[in-house]
Amino acid sequence: MIQQKEFSLPPFRRGFHLVTDIILESVGELPGEGIMNVFIHHTSAGLTINENADPSVRRDLDGFFDHIAPEGLPFITHTLEGTDDMPAHVKSSVAGVSLTIPISKGKLKLGTWQGIYLCEFRNNGGSRKITVTLFY
Amino acid sequence: MIQQKEFSLPPFRRGFHLVTDIILESVGELPGEGIMNVFIHHTSAGLTINENADPSVRRDLDGFFDHIAPEGLPFITHTLEGTDDMPAHVKSSVAGVSLTIPISKGKLKLGTWQGIYLCEFRNNGGSRKITVTLFY
Amino acid sequence: MIQQKEFSLPPFRRGFHLVTDIILESVGELPGEGIMNVFIHHTSAGLTINENADPSVRRDLDGFFDHIAPEGLPFITHTLEGTDDMPAHVKSSVAGVSLTIPISKGKLKLGTWQGIYLCEFRNNGGSRKITVTLFY
Repeated sequence: MIQQKEFSLPPFRRGFHLVTDIILESVGELPGEGIMNVFIHHTSAGLTINENADPSVRRDLDGFFDHIAPEGLPFITHTLEGTDDMPAHVKSSVAGVSLTIPISKGKLKLGTWQGIYLCEFRNNGGSRKITVTLFY
Repeated sequence: MIQQKEFSLPPFRRGFHLVTDIILESVGELPGEGIMNVFIHHTSAGLTINENADPSVRRDLDGFFDHIAPEGLPFITHTLEGTDDMPAHVKSSVAGVSLTIPISKGKLKLGTWQGIYLCEFRNNGGSRKITVTLFY
Repeated sequence: MIQQKEFSLPPFRRGFHLVTDIILESVGELPGEGIMNVFIHHTSAGLTINENADPSVRRDLDGFFDHIAPEGLPFITHTLEGTDDMPAHVKSSVAGVSLTIPISKGKLKLGTWQGIYLCEFRNNGGSRKITVTLFY
């Protein structure tokens, strides 16, 4: 059995944001056992799974991703859409745009400390389109 | 329902290359609704999804991955296969070797600007083996 | 058809470790054709696929991940759980926590040189919980 749903996340400011609850509300009832694939349809944002409790983790992740792919490096040629654009593409490929997560007993089978993050890498990324596919 | 197909990509030079069309042609007709997993059977190449229009994005991604995992760092010990080999292994784990993408209405449900990239991290990587698995 | 199994990996020291055999033994018989999703329920460890032969690749990967996300960067604020903790969260998002791998002829369809790695990013991470989901 397969079920697919497309929806949009509200605009978030640049950074890492917990969106587990928004995604679960958008998807509705989960099957008893299966997997859920979450896919973001953009090349300057990403999805990842990380710590769901302390906001300092999200803040520091932002600092680290800027450290990994800084703006203004001398070799960058793709600059027409702003200095935040090309680093955003890099970060998107580092974080990834697709998550596959097990479902068990009608719930997303995340670890105690795991949450789904929207990684917004643009200064003004706007609303982001997501497709969730359930297999069960 | 499940369908699996193995095929080889032609050799590409070191860098990031749009291969969405090659993959779709190799796979043939897609189901109405489902997911497609694309898997590359190598440890010095990768797969990612990124911008499908401006070639400068692919060129800069190459520059950034060299910035993230440069050749010649003093701690590198795995050098027998050339200075490009160990950084290629690192980049493969940063980009990943497996993509899971939704299918809808018989088409790959990518964003407007998204394409599938082969990430060729070796100077002479040769032909790369891919397995595509369709679930529907 | 879907089958799901949860189990724990024994504690590993900080670094990259080949766990293909442990995972396959824990899962038991594989279906003829399908996919296997391996998911790790932690935010300071990860899973990746890389070279299964030369231990120097695992050692150098460790060096490179420390290079990408070093301890002690001046902007880090999440330091209560030790200097290795926040870099471990970053590395987890860089490597990822979920792998999707094709199965063919009752075997995991990895490349000749590919193996599944546990990426243990903490100094004392302890035992790590894994869920494997088979679809066929």
